[in-house]
Amino acid sequence: MTEQKRRSFSSDYTQGAHQSILDRLVATNFDYTPGYGLDPVCDAAREKIRIACDAPDAAVHFLVGGTQANATVIGAVLDSWKGVVSADSGHIATHEAGAIEVGGHKVLCIPQEDGKISAEAILALRKAWEADDNHDHVVEPGMVYLSQPTEFGTLYSLSELTAISDVCKASGMLLYVDGARLAYALASPENDVTMRDLARLTDAFYIGGTKCGALFGEAVVMGDPKLCPRFFTITKQQGAMVAKGRMLGIQFDCLFEDGLYERIGEPAVAAADAIRAALDAAGIEQPMRNSTNQVFALLTSAQVEAFQSTFDLGFWERIDDDHLVMRFATSWATTEDDLQVALDAIARVGSRS
Amino acid sequence: MTEQKRRSFSSDYTQGAHQSILDRLVATNFDYTPGYGLDPVCDAAREKIRIACDAPDAAVHFLVGGTQANATVIGAVLDSWKGVVSADSGHIATHEAGAIEVGGHKVLCIPQEDGKISAEAILALRKAWEADDNHDHVVEPGMVYLSQPTEFGTLYSLSELTAISDVCKASGMLLYVDGARLAYALASPENDVTMRDLARLTDAFYIGGTKCGALFGEAVVMGDPKLCPRFFTITKQQGAMVAKGRMLGIQFDCLFEDGLYERIGEPAVAAADAIRAALDAAGIEQPMRNSTNQVFALLTSAQVEAFQSTFDLGFWERIDDDHLVMRFATSWATTEDDLQVALDAIARVGSRS
Amino acid sequence: MTEQKRRSFSSDYTQGAHQSILDRLVATNFDYTPGYGLDPVCDAAREKIRIACDAPDAAVHFLVGGTQANATVIGAVLDSWKGVVSADSGHIATHEAGAIEVGGHKVLCIPQEDGKISAEAILALRKAWEADDNHDHVVEPGMVYLSQPTEFGTLYSLSELTAISDVCKASGMLLYVDGARLAYALASPENDVTMRDLARLTDAFYIGGTKCGALFGEAVVMGDPKLCPRFFTITKQQGAMVAKGRMLGIQFDCLFEDGLYERIGEPAVAAADAIRAALDAAGIEQPMRNSTNQVFALLTSAQVEAFQSTFDLGFWERIDDDHLVMRFATSWATTEDDLQVALDAIARVGSRS
Amino acid sequence: MTEQKRRSFSSDYTQGAHQSILDRLVATNFDYTPGYGLDPVCDAAREKIRIACDAPDAAVHFLVGGTQANATVIGAVLDSWKGVVSADSGHIATHEAGAIEVGGHKVLCIPQEDGKISAEAILALRKAWEADDNHDHVVEPGMVYLSQPTEFGTLYSLSELTAISDVCKASGMLLYVDGARLAYALASPENDVTMRDLARLTDAFYIGGTKCGALFGEAVVMGDPKLCPRFFTITKQQGAMVAKGRMLGIQFDCLFEDGLYERIGEPAVAAADAIRAALDAAGIEQPMRNSTNQVFALLTSAQVEAFQSTFDLGFWERIDDDHLVMRFATSWATTEDDLQVALDAIARVGSRS
Repeated sequence: MTEQKRRSFSSDYTQGAHQSILDRLVATNFDYTPGYGLDPVCDAAREKIRIACDAPDAAVHFLVGGTQANATVIGAVLDSWKGVVSADSGHIATHEAGAIEVGGHKVLCIPQEDGKISAEAILALRKAWEADDNHDHVVEPGMVYLSQPTEFGTLYSLSELTAISDVCKASGMLLYVDGARLAYALASPENDVTMRDLARLTDAFYIGGTKCGALFGEAVVMGDPKLCPRFFTITKQQGAMVAKGRMLGIQFDCLFEDGLYERIGEPAVAAADAIRAALDAAGIEQPMRNSTNQVFALLTSAQVEAFQSTFDLGFWERIDDDHLVMRFATSWATTEDDLQVALDAIARVGSRS
Repeated sequence: MTEQKRRSFSSDYTQGAHQSILDRLVATNFDYTPGYGLDPVCDAAREKIRIACDAPDAAVHFLVGGTQANATVIGAVLDSWKGVVSADSGHIATHEAGAIEVGGHKVLCIPQEDGKISAEAILALRKAWEADDNHDHVVEPGMVYLSQPTEFGTLYSLSELTAISDVCKASGMLLYVDGARLAYALASPENDVTMRDLARLTDAFYIGGTKCGALFGEAVVMGDPKLCPRFFTITKQQGAMVAKGRMLGIQFDCLFEDGLYERIGEPAVAAADAIRAALDAAGIEQPMRNSTNQVFALLTSAQVEAFQSTFDLGFWERIDDDHLVMRFATSWATTEDDLQVALDAIARVGSRS
Repeated sequence: MTEQKRRSFSSDYTQGAHQSILDRLVATNFDYTPGYGLDPVCDAAREKIRIACDAPDAAVHFLVGGTQANATVIGAVLDSWKGVVSADSGHIATHEAGAIEVGGHKVLCIPQEDGKISAEAILALRKAWEADDNHDHVVEPGMVYLSQPTEFGTLYSLSELTAISDVCKASGMLLYVDGARLAYALASPENDVTMRDLARLTDAFYIGGTKCGALFGEAVVMGDPKLCPRFFTITKQQGAMVAKGRMLGIQFDCLFEDGLYERIGEPAVAAADAIRAALDAAGIEQPMRNSTNQVFALLTSAQVEAFQSTFDLGFWERIDDDHLVMRFATSWATTEDDLQVALDAIARVGSRS
Repeated sequence: MTEQKRRSFSSDYTQGAHQSILDRLVATNFDYTPGYGLDPVCDAAREKIRIACDAPDAAVHFLVGGTQANATVIGAVLDSWKGVVSADSGHIATHEAGAIEVGGHKVLCIPQEDGKISAEAILALRKAWEADDNHDHVVEPGMVYLSQPTEFGTLYSLSELTAISDVCKASGMLLYVDGARLAYALASPENDVTMRDLARLTDAFYIGGTKCGALFGEAVVMGDPKLCPRFFTITKQQGAMVAKGRMLGIQFDCLFEDGLYERIGEPAVAAADAIRAALDAAGIEQPMRNSTNQVFALLTSAQVEAFQSTFDLGFWERIDDDHLVMRFATSWATTEDDLQVALDAIARVGSRS
């Protein structure tokens, strides 16, 4: 099993969990708790999240993964005859194998700009539907799906998010934000959107655990608990219920202890910044830029091979026979050592180009 | 959080994981692995399971929970126009909140006897469908679902299982076995069905982890990998894919190290046997009996209250205003201390009746 | 095509439409109307139905067939996590090929008595769910499905229907009545349930056209139009929308002209009564009896063959190698000639037994 | 009901059925036939269609409408994890209220050119999926959906269709053609694709009845009956089964009597050609052109109002506050009189511009 010791920047879910989570799992292993999230640890974690979101009445539901969270939430709260608006680069539109459609809903795509969609474009889509004389035969845009950060690592600003929220409220659409990598948004110096803002401006959003320090787990926050009173049963129906639900409670209780979640992404963002600078210095093109934990590099096949002799990168897109976009993803677990290996490799590969 | 220290016999999923699993999680926490189960730990665990099942070509898929496993497997392999046959007490028929129907399939129920259904009753149901002149309007029995042990803790014998397998093969029906508590079957002195038998006699079955020593996780085994070549994508569509798939690999690799899985249920069965004997001695009726880890006791409300002053029991069924069936579930984690507390309580409660 | 001239009592949908419908189709063939039921003929038919139901605000939706009506209505109005209660002999439970499950809902069966279920049995089912401590894992009984007449041709009395309606209202369950053969209930001398009663006591019911004088078509009546404001789009999504919707409007406009629908079943019921008497006289057992248009006879294979040399009967159920239950179904189109042929055959077959 | 006498060019489904169909309905009204399409009239119609398609083994299934045909066929033959490729202007992508997604499949859109998609674009989409290292997380293009004529009235040439069929075969994708208006393709002088070609080059296609002379009905043709042996039951599950199936048989038997279907669109195409010429002469812009039965005109609000004082036009698209694209749809039922009224109006409206 030596292969696992080899470093990887392919994604932010290659390693385990924050040390405090492991410690707590070990410490509480033989405690007895009721199942299905109905235990005091889950309750404590929920309460910490409510406080972090300044949303004292919020419903907080723990799920295992991102696609599961998206499919379960959208299925639970979107009327059967409505569709969900997404950037064409959105996770639900591209990398969930059609899970939203399996749930019966159309994903209505808007071309992304910098990974994002604008309040104006959303409003235009909605207005076009409203103005269509035949719109009873057309899927109604009933919800907006965003991710923060986006698939491209970019961020919605508070003013952008507020504008989208206003459009949704004015049009009767729900607003849902996928926060799979939310910790890396919160750790970005460019970010001005807090969890309080998300709780206030959305109908539902989820706080990503899997990519942000947990073994697995996402915390769905619905500011208004009346949005979906029977979410528990719906979760069960979707096969999304965890019997030993306290596993999720423990992880989020640790992640929200003393504001850890708001800091946990900092080393990742710092390392990504350093990699961005190194790529620039090495003359390697970055086709998309952001201020979070993902770095995209346009590389030749030879460069890819050179990097991969030392560590793994993530495949993003094939441009042509000899060029690919590859991803350096840093994470909460990225160490100084990891970073130095990356910087050394970039300098080495760049010098040969 | 003192409440969690209070003992519970309410179910077999109140505590954490086998020590070897925790140790491995800690030891490998900062290893790097690819996601989605495509890592060497998962591969190693799959290979150990194949060996334990004497099924060298089997496809082994890791999922998070039992309802998820049932819904995903049934949805993946059962033709859309067919239904699945189950005991009316079967988990898919009763306690999965309609997950199978959400996937579009009818559950065709046969009245249970001792928690089980017989080859004869299955064949009769199939023959009735075949003989019905209007059967193109009727859901075709296309798969048989069993659990081993059953919801009542009872066991199919090898001859019973073989007879059911023969009926399925002869009728063109698939056979699927839910092994949520399989370790407790394997640990029962009355059991004569091995994992090799299950692999040989079924089209698919799952080896339960959640209730048998893991934090979470079930291993689906399909003896013939051609049964569902695209199970990976189907899993993703169902939101059943875990990004850090190695968490599942680690757990099953530990559970199948040196035959642990076949022994892990032994303390549970021994403790359950002791509880059964103590209830008999105390004159407390056991409405259903089995040789695995669940004990069902017919109690008055006062008796329930008396027990619950010391530890939790599981609610099974309300009989009338003053009588309930309650469950004592032991587990892989049940200690001598736990057992003694139970036995003392039974003697105390019994003496007062 | 001489075969089609051969008489058939196999079902009540072997022949075309009431003459007034054909006449109207011919007379209006080259009229121009908007599509999808948004035309003045449909509006006129809706208004006539509202008047017949004394339900001035009711939403009336035209669909093509019975399974379509059941699946579309149940899918449209039943919350995703709830199931529908039916007699185990109910059409949705037996002869719709699993259409309700395809829509994601479990059919919760109660054993029929005389084809019916009682308010008491429904209440017991509901109370058992409410009393179950684990009921968040169990499908909630959320709607009751009845048929009037039932699959066995029997009728709910007004007091039975009122009791069921009261249970539904008190428990928060919807009540839906399948009126595929409603005209034969209305024409039965034993019937005391009017369309006004159905509109008043149910949340939705449908007035059957296909088996009651139309080429095809069922009219769904929802007393409270707020029950499902977007039924139009849901119908479209289900592929249940007819482009030339006026075809449905014309048929129901004719069926509700001068109270035709309330009379159209009379010859069928009279003929069925005569057949029942003839079977009694011939000593042929009727395993189920009713006062509407279906007659069930227990026949030997030789008797079946003897009847089928003259006309077709409907297969109901095979009892054993030599005995079957067969159905004589009369209809709005049954003539004196048809009846005489049946009576002669019964006398002939009976005399040989 | 005088409003219905007012002419309409809003669509090709505003009027009833071809006279021969009405005559046959009247002549056979009191014949007895088995239900569900299992009658000799349906069999005769199927045989005529097989002959017209030169496909002696083809399975021919009758359904009621276009969205129903699309949703049922796609649901029946497309693997659950695959999506269907369509022009972004395709009917399944725009005007079916999300019916394909309700069935669990994603519609993968390619930008239309002249209402069509090319073999090259389809191949590129497929190759991109194949080349994506992460494609197990991405919906596989598994079927191509075309319409002939397209939503814009344009036609695929035989060479275009052959190229698409070749791409599909080489890539393991199914090819399905929506022929809602097929009669108007067959009647176009520019068309070189016969029903034999469609049967030969596709896996399934449907011959439109509703818009081409029937009251309702579409005939699905699968050249290889092994494509979906249980289509009958699937149809029932979808609520798409008609009890008096002979209604569909009668209509297609008439439409395929003496090659009627291949001629029935001729008056529509001739009238559309005349309208196109008149619009050109009147200086009214036609934003999209074709050689079939739909004519699209760019009109001011005042012009729309002027036309609609005499007859109805179909809404297509709002361009801005004062401009709309409106549709003149002619049909099999368009008379010389109808045409003259249209031409007079165009001349009158044009002269005022």
